Amino acid sequence: MALKRIGTQTVKLSNPPSMVSTASIVGPKEGDGPLKDYYDVILEDDLWGEESFEKAEAKIQEEAIKLAIQNADLSPNQIEYLFSGDLLNQITSSGYAARQLEIPYFGLYGACSTMTESLSLGAMIIDGGFADKVVCATSSHFSSAERQFRFPLEYGAQRPFSSQWTVTGAGAVVLSSTGNGPYITYVTTGRIQDYGITDANNMGAAMVPAAIDTITRHFKDTGYNPEDYDLIITGDLASIGKNVLLDLMRKEGYDLSNNYTDCGVEIFDNVRQDTHAGASGCGCAAVVLSAYIYEEMLKGNLNRVLLVATGALHSPISVLQNESIPGIAHGITIDNMIF
Amino acid sequence: MALKRIGTQTVKLSNPPSMVSTASIVGPKEGDGPLKDYYDVILEDDLWGEESFEKAEAKIQEEAIKLAIQNADLSPNQIEYLFSGDLLNQITSSGYAARQLEIPYFGLYGACSTMTESLSLGAMIIDGGFADKVVCATSSHFSSAERQFRFPLEYGAQRPFSSQWTVTGAGAVVLSSTGNGPYITYVTTGRIQDYGITDANNMGAAMVPAAIDTITRHFKDTGYNPEDYDLIITGDLASIGKNVLLDLMRKEGYDLSNNYTDCGVEIFDNVRQDTHAGASGCGCAAVVLSAYIYEEMLKGNLNRVLLVATGALHSPISVLQNESIPGIAHGITIDNMIF
Repeated sequence: MALKRIGTQTVKLSNPPSMVSTASIVGPKEGDGPLKDYYDVILEDDLWGEESFEKAEAKIQEEAIKLAIQNADLSPNQIEYLFSGDLLNQITSSGYAARQLEIPYFGLYGACSTMTESLSLGAMIIDGGFADKVVCATSSHFSSAERQFRFPLEYGAQRPFSSQWTVTGAGAVVLSSTGNGPYITYVTTGRIQDYGITDANNMGAAMVPAAIDTITRHFKDTGYNPEDYDLIITGDLASIGKNVLLDLMRKEGYDLSNNYTDCGVEIFDNVRQDTHAGASGCGCAAVVLSAYIYEEMLKGNLNRVLLVATGALHSPISVLQNESIPGIAHGITIDNMIF
Repeated sequence: MALKRIGTQTVKLSNPPSMVSTASIVGPKEGDGPLKDYYDVILEDDLWGEESFEKAEAKIQEEAIKLAIQNADLSPNQIEYLFSGDLLNQITSSGYAARQLEIPYFGLYGACSTMTESLSLGAMIIDGGFADKVVCATSSHFSSAERQFRFPLEYGAQRPFSSQWTVTGAGAVVLSSTGNGPYITYVTTGRIQDYGITDANNMGAAMVPAAIDTITRHFKDTGYNPEDYDLIITGDLASIGKNVLLDLMRKEGYDLSNNYTDCGVEIFDNVRQDTHAGASGCGCAAVVLSAYIYEEMLKGNLNRVLLVATGALHSPISVLQNESIPGIAHGITIDNMIF
């Protein structure tokens, strides 16, 4: 067993990569939400001059990546790898964004867990000595996701109260082998959990078992407890999943009531903004990390964060074929200090 | 710049991971092709007892992964990471296969380049000290791909002569930090190339620029020349792309006429089996590697191979929206000896 591994699913990075910059670009609805003061760019409309929602999403991701690179005073040719993904079929938002950037590219699919999947791989690739600088990015778009996963917007379909609102936005992080933090110190990689949920309008419930599996495994592997963290934040269980997770973690022996929340709960005002259970989408954890978490860590208001992005790995076809919805959750520890 | 990097897009692995086992499972048409004696399992029908092509593809990938693990005398709980992907929307074949295996899972999307994407990441993760054993796998299925990317089979649509036949099959490789080879010694990661091809029935042409970019970059980064390899093999340019590549590489100053072929050319007898330009699909490079290349390397008939799987990163939606087809190619060097 290699020395960097601890426990069964966690690695401890020996030279923790530094998050030297981030960027976040969001749509108008997100820009009207509780985290509005944290975003780099708030769009006035969600097409951003493009002729389709899909092209707009690719542009949002591309511009977020460029802005993160610029925020680090770097140029794209100084970035050795791009790790990115999104929700669209064949992850075309990421592919078309990467096409414009000429950075060696690894395309990922982890549904809404993709941001921590990309950071997990990016951090290990830097720590392993294969790169000095990488960019990790994801995006999602309410309108491209609705028509792909559910109904064309023009149908005016009514959304059940358990449904989540896909975030329009992209987040990007530049990781570097050198820098002053925040640092990625631990990576706990998820196994798929499937408790038989078949309701694609209740994805929070479908993803909770994966989040619980990864968080408890993280604690067991590292020896940490909930109180060792300033913030434990999943993405995107939203309000239903958040409460289920709190209950079930208590049964596992962990009380998360003091320092736990979910990206899908924080990004919208669910009552005023009519988002029902809360938010979802690859872009949700990406912009909450790139905007809110990153800024609060730089200010020192948060010093140690466990971010566990969660993904539902179904497709519209698999649901029609009576398959249940597998969930996955990837956790990373972000530290202001390295010990 | 970290020491493992050479040139601009290549890393040289310091403790090259060993391919300790492989497995290949193919459909009946592939099992009737020129490489039939190399496969582990040839299916009698492409549903394999499942009720949909999509479920069959997931089963094929799952069984290939299990067989590769078994061929290495290991059990799934000894595998630290699974890197896999496929062509289906939301890569559900890989997700549903991974669900059955309980191995920490990284989902990838690189279209038909996914096999070398997974091997690139798996090899670096082992070489970096983050794992001792990983599995890299991909699958594709003619019938699930046709109805997703082109037309339902029931339409009986006529295929143009430039079209490629998606391989029904899955390949899986167990990489280990210890073993007697063949070893993955170099990883050259591709940048997206897009020369404006918009014909989704001529994907070989769309992917050629990416293959040329990665192969020439590999030679420049490593200092190797074509004659340093027993075999240089792309996947899946098929017959049209193969000839274009040979011509254009000559213009770049490299003569590949003695030792170059393409996975999509080798797997079918295009005339007898009526496959037009040749084969494609994530499963194509995966089974050619897991069956033919691996066995010929074990026999010593091949000692150094450059495998460059190529992917077309479009979607049916992006083509309808008048986007061109971006290509990517990831290269790995497989060596029987480490120097």
